[in-house]
Amino acid sequence: MSLLVTGSIGIDTVESPAGKAVDTLGGSSIYFAYASSFFTPVRLVGVVGDDCTPEFLKPLHDNANIDLGGLEVRAGSKTFRWHGKYHEDVNERDTVSVDLNVHGEEGPTIPHAFYDSEYVFLANTHPDLQIELLGQLGCPTFVACDTMDLWIDTERDSLMKLLAKVDAVILNDAEARQLTGEMNVVKAGFELGKVVKQYVIIKKGEHGALLFAGDEVFVSIGYPARNVVDPTGAGDSFAGGLMGYLAEMDATDVKTVRKAMAYGAAVASLELEDFSLDRLTELSRADIDARLAEIASITGFED
Amino acid sequence: MSLLVTGSIGIDTVESPAGKAVDTLGGSSIYFAYASSFFTPVRLVGVVGDDCTPEFLKPLHDNANIDLGGLEVRAGSKTFRWHGKYHEDVNERDTVSVDLNVHGEEGPTIPHAFYDSEYVFLANTHPDLQIELLGQLGCPTFVACDTMDLWIDTERDSLMKLLAKVDAVILNDAEARQLTGEMNVVKAGFELGKVVKQYVIIKKGEHGALLFAGDEVFVSIGYPARNVVDPTGAGDSFAGGLMGYLAEMDATDVKTVRKAMAYGAAVASLELEDFSLDRLTELSRADIDARLAEIASITGFED
Repeated sequence: MSLLVTGSIGIDTVESPAGKAVDTLGGSSIYFAYASSFFTPVRLVGVVGDDCTPEFLKPLHDNANIDLGGLEVRAGSKTFRWHGKYHEDVNERDTVSVDLNVHGEEGPTIPHAFYDSEYVFLANTHPDLQIELLGQLGCPTFVACDTMDLWIDTERDSLMKLLAKVDAVILNDAEARQLTGEMNVVKAGFELGKVVKQYVIIKKGEHGALLFAGDEVFVSIGYPARNVVDPTGAGDSFAGGLMGYLAEMDATDVKTVRKAMAYGAAVASLELEDFSLDRLTELSRADIDARLAEIASITGFED
Repeated sequence: MSLLVTGSIGIDTVESPAGKAVDTLGGSSIYFAYASSFFTPVRLVGVVGDDCTPEFLKPLHDNANIDLGGLEVRAGSKTFRWHGKYHEDVNERDTVSVDLNVHGEEGPTIPHAFYDSEYVFLANTHPDLQIELLGQLGCPTFVACDTMDLWIDTERDSLMKLLAKVDAVILNDAEARQLTGEMNVVKAGFELGKVVKQYVIIKKGEHGALLFAGDEVFVSIGYPARNVVDPTGAGDSFAGGLMGYLAEMDATDVKTVRKAMAYGAAVASLELEDFSLDRLTELSRADIDARLAEIASITGFED
């Protein structure tokens, strides 16, 4: 089934204990698109400046499953830039600099050819823009969104309007707590479950993720990764693997979502083994299925 | 099979967002003993002062599965006291006060009747005392120990000697990192696996636990608890459920340890629903089995 993603596209510089990568391709929608492309054709909607050359975007152009029909290269604008530095403990990072550039201008437009998209992921951006983009679509089967601390802080009303429109929200534990004012992440998840139509998925980084569905909660483990080079994009890769699998299966029941979360964890755990898209571009679906099988074998217990 | 535990016994005062409990029964060996008593007979070895009345110790006296033959009530001494205060986020706590009292004096002695103990848990105390107590035992089948930041900081040599003598170490993620200097908790686990005889079990609080066995790592989930009244003793209850099940089964293969960890998570998730031993003393084995079944049903995915 068709899967559409909108969100940031950036030129990233990342420093981690493993090294430094300067001016590499990044952004939420990029990681999402690449991760989901292993499962289903993906339609990417976003804006870059004319400093984003075809050569720079080569990993996207080279991927037959990513449709760039919604990628606007805006003349005279500059691409969003982010520079982050991870601590020795890579669960902590500082933002060295952010330049909104084209992300501070008018948002992207969804091309007519994408109106019939059935699965949609609204990656983190201003919630008013997320609502507007959603309004440009026909009648999608399943819509999920992400957000960030900035919008929870400054655009709460818009964000709550958005949440009421989506089938699922995929956000991290700190965001879930901030949004609900509830320190217990399980209570926070059930609280958010009253707002969205169907599912709340709370990402806990290396500790996995929680799925809230009605009055039930399920736990998806994080893969115990030894080789963490660059965690940038892991959360978006998780969402990409998850939504990609749902679109591939064209199913959104709890059982399918639970397996989709494991696929998300599998892709994310591979993605962070190198900078930017470097690991994802090496992968085959078989590599992801092998990681999924490994996750299955190390999870749980025989009763 | 017989299970012996040595460790602290305290008079605790705990403040949490859910309320305050003054001068209640606590200490690592107490939580461990009560948690493991659902699975197997437990032998408790420890020292209290004569301010610890039989009335105060009533939950232990009332538990037919806990053998108090190794409990020394030392005349003229005072019991260890701890006062802790949890933050609104109960993953954070401050120590308001600690009075070592009898724990600053000579350690306990293992009674002759306990020399033949087959399963042994050396809960956190000075590693020299842990080594000495282990030396007082015959030839136990399986010995596990815990430790704390203080000893990692001040008694590293003794602690490393202890670790080389035990079959398993059960410690939390911060301790594993501190002990190895390795920020990646998975690398830290494998590092410690080179020191102990068999298993490294790293507790991650609400996020579950990791088991390191040779070159393999397994993940045990944390139960998504909504009702956290007092996390004090959850880690010791986890260890108690785990070791209790191993002793009950008289088996320590990886498969049994994985199920034992799930039992540990089940008991711990119930324990934190009230202050001190208040929840544990209400429980039956059937309650724990029901929680285990719930953990099984919310873990993993069908592949």
